[in-house]
Amino acid sequence: MSIDQIAQIVRACIETRTPITTRGAGSALEGSTIPLANGIVLDVSRMTRVLNYWPEDLQIEIEPGIIYDHLNNHLKRDGLFFPPSPGGSGDIATVGGMVSTNASGIYSVRYGGTREYVLAMTIVTGTGEILKLGNRAVKRSSGYNLTDLIAGSEGTLGIIGSITLKLAGIPEDRLQSAFTFPSETAAAKAVSEIRRYGIDIAAIEFLDRHVMRALNALKGYALEEVPSLFLEFHGPKSALESNSELAGGLCSELGGKPLILADGQRPWEIRHWVTDSIKHFKPGHRIVRNDVAFPISKLPAMVDYCHQLGEQYRIPMFTFGHVGLGLLHALMLADDHDPGQKQRVEQANHLIIEKAVALGGTISGEHGIGLGHKDLFVSEHGDAVELMRKIKRQFDPHLILNPGKIFDI
Amino acid sequence: MSIDQIAQIVRACIETRTPITTRGAGSALEGSTIPLANGIVLDVSRMTRVLNYWPEDLQIEIEPGIIYDHLNNHLKRDGLFFPPSPGGSGDIATVGGMVSTNASGIYSVRYGGTREYVLAMTIVTGTGEILKLGNRAVKRSSGYNLTDLIAGSEGTLGIIGSITLKLAGIPEDRLQSAFTFPSETAAAKAVSEIRRYGIDIAAIEFLDRHVMRALNALKGYALEEVPSLFLEFHGPKSALESNSELAGGLCSELGGKPLILADGQRPWEIRHWVTDSIKHFKPGHRIVRNDVAFPISKLPAMVDYCHQLGEQYRIPMFTFGHVGLGLLHALMLADDHDPGQKQRVEQANHLIIEKAVALGGTISGEHGIGLGHKDLFVSEHGDAVELMRKIKRQFDPHLILNPGKIFDI
Repeated sequence: MSIDQIAQIVRACIETRTPITTRGAGSALEGSTIPLANGIVLDVSRMTRVLNYWPEDLQIEIEPGIIYDHLNNHLKRDGLFFPPSPGGSGDIATVGGMVSTNASGIYSVRYGGTREYVLAMTIVTGTGEILKLGNRAVKRSSGYNLTDLIAGSEGTLGIIGSITLKLAGIPEDRLQSAFTFPSETAAAKAVSEIRRYGIDIAAIEFLDRHVMRALNALKGYALEEVPSLFLEFHGPKSALESNSELAGGLCSELGGKPLILADGQRPWEIRHWVTDSIKHFKPGHRIVRNDVAFPISKLPAMVDYCHQLGEQYRIPMFTFGHVGLGLLHALMLADDHDPGQKQRVEQANHLIIEKAVALGGTISGEHGIGLGHKDLFVSEHGDAVELMRKIKRQFDPHLILNPGKIFDI
Repeated sequence: MSIDQIAQIVRACIETRTPITTRGAGSALEGSTIPLANGIVLDVSRMTRVLNYWPEDLQIEIEPGIIYDHLNNHLKRDGLFFPPSPGGSGDIATVGGMVSTNASGIYSVRYGGTREYVLAMTIVTGTGEILKLGNRAVKRSSGYNLTDLIAGSEGTLGIIGSITLKLAGIPEDRLQSAFTFPSETAAAKAVSEIRRYGIDIAAIEFLDRHVMRALNALKGYALEEVPSLFLEFHGPKSALESNSELAGGLCSELGGKPLILADGQRPWEIRHWVTDSIKHFKPGHRIVRNDVAFPISKLPAMVDYCHQLGEQYRIPMFTFGHVGLGLLHALMLADDHDPGQKQRVEQANHLIIEKAVALGGTISGEHGIGLGHKDLFVSEHGDAVELMRKIKRQFDPHLILNPGKIFDI
C-alpha cells in the first residue's frame, strides 16, 4: 500500500461516511485498534519498507508497518538503534503503532518516549489530503509542532504513511544493579536523589513487597519482601562504573542494601519473572493492569492506596513500574468466574487511576487511552478536551478516523 | 497581574477586536513581541512569582515573567536547574518568552530545548477562556499534546499565565575540550561519530575558519585558521574523563588535533569572543544572523554555500553554531550606510535559509519565526500551514492574539 492509495481509500470512505480504524500489529493494550462502528480496518502491517536511511545523520525514514525489533536489527550493524523499547512487545509492535500511542518503556529515563524521536511524517488527514509534517532538523523553533500532535493521537487525526525517526547510538556497554529499601518512601527518595544528582541512568525500575513475595513463591528466591529498585546504566564502561557507584552510594544513604541472589544469578534476571510470578499467584485469573504516572514523591501514597484497596476489595494487588519517570503499574488478578470479584477489580482499577489524576498525574504513562480509559479522560483534561475536539474536527471534519477513541465527539 | 485579570483583558479586547501582543523581556530576535496593528502590548514581565516548588519531584510552577537566570539562582541551593540556556540572554529572557519561542541553546545536545521541560500550563485562549493543559506526570500517553502545541506558538494561540516545568540536577562537574580539523567534512563526521557512539555529551560547538581568523585578528591568538569543534561534558568527574577521552579518540581518528592556546588559557574561552571578534572585523557594521538547522551531514555543504555567497556578494561571512544538533548561525556584516551592500546581505540571508530548507532543514532552530522569517515559513511547511491556520482559529477565533506573527491568516 502507498500513501496515495491510503488517500484514495480515505476519499472513498468520505463519500460513504465509512469509519476507518488503522491497525498495525493490533498489540495496543487499550483497544485503539478495535473498530467500534461498522467501517473498515486499514491494515498497514505490510507497509514495512525502509524509504531512506541516513546513518551519518542518525536518521531513517520508514513505513509505519515495520516491527520495532526488525527496525533495530536493521540498524544494529551501524551501531544505531531506535530506543523507546515498548515493554515485552517489541517483537510484534509496529513503529507506526508506537508513534500513534507515543509508546515508551523501561529505558525512557535516558532516551525519552517515541514522540521525542519523530522528526517528520507524511499523513493522510480525514479530508483525504496528503500532508508532510516536520523535517529533518533535530533542533527547531518553527511554528506549531504538528508532529508532536499526531504522535499519541491514536489514529484519530490522520493515517501515517511514513515516519522519519531520529536514532541513537548503541551504548558501548551496560551495567545493572539492584537495591532493597526499608520503605516505599526511602525508594522514592532514592529516585529523586539519583535524578537530582544528574546521573546518566537508563532505567530505574521499582517492585513492591507483594511482587517480591510472588517472585519468591514462583522461583524460590528467598528475597527479602521489601520494596526494591533496579538500576541500569548505559555508556562507555568506565563512565558506567562511576555512575553506578554514585547511584549506589545515594541508595545506601537512604537505607538501600544491594540485592544479592543466593545462586549467583544477576538480580535483574528476576525482573523478567515479574508478570509470570503474578500470573502464577492465582492460576486461572486474568491480569488487569493500568499504567498511571505521577510525580515521584507520590509513590509511597500511590503504593499504599493500591494495597489498601487490595485488602478492602479482597483483590491480589501488585505494583511495579518505571518509577524513574514516575510510572507505576498496578496489577490485579480478576476471576472471570466470579462476577462480584471481577467487578471489584474494575472498581479498584478505576479508583487507582482517579487517585493518580488527583495526585497531579495521568491516566496513561505509556499505553494510551483508546477505549479503556475514555471515561476518565475528561477528569484528567477538563475543559481542554473541548479544544481537542475542535482540533480533531480540523483534521477530520467528517469524523471518520478511528471514531470513538480517546474521547467522544 | 493574575490569570483572571488576563482573561478579563482578553474578554474586553474581544469586544473591540483589539489585537494583543504579549511581551516578556522583549528579547526575542525575530520580532514576535513587536505589535503590528493598533492594539495593546500585554506586559507580563512583573508576573515573577514562584507558585509551587517541588524539589523532590524536580518540578516548579512559575509565572511567565520570571527571568531565566533568576529562576536558576533560586534553584541552585537545591542542586537543580532549568537547562535550556538561551545563549547570551539568560539574564534578560523570561521563561514565558522561552516557552513561547521554544528557545534552546548550547547545552541542548544533552538536555533538549524548552518544550521538553514544559509539563503543564494555564493559558487564556482568544475566547477569554482559562484552560489548564497537561499535568505533573513526566511520562504520558494521554490524548493530544497541547502543551507542545502552545510551546513555540509565539503568543498566537494563548496567553500563558503559569508554567509547570520539569527540572534537571546540576551535574557534579564539567569538562571542556576543543579540536581543529582539516575540513568541515571531517568536523561533521566527528559530530556523527560522537553521537553514534552514544557518548553523554552536553555541547558540540563549531567555528569555521573565518571565525578563527576573526578571533586571531581581535585577540592575537595565532590559532590555525581551520574549522574547529568545542566539546563540553557534564556529569560525575570520572564519567567526564572517560567520555572526553572517547570523544577525543574519535576526533583524532578523523584528523582532529587538540586546540591548544599558547598562553595556557583554556580553549573554550575563545568561544566567548566569537561575536565580538566578528563585530570588530568591520567596525560600524551591523550583524545580521540566522539560526538554520539541518541534518549534520549537510554541514560541509552549508558552510561552503555560505562562503560562496559571501564571496559572490562581497559580504563578510562567518559560520558557527550548536552543530551537535545541526544548528548553524551564518553571521554577516551589513553596512547600513551602503544600501546596495545592505540589500545583498538580506538576499544572502534569504538564500542561506532557503538552502537549509532545501537540505531538509528548518528556517529556525532556536529563535522562532516572528516577523523575520514569515516569508519563508510556507516554503518550509507547505500545505501544513493551512492546518496551522485552522488550529489557530480554534484557539483564537477573533484573531486577536499576536496577529501577523509566524504566518498570515
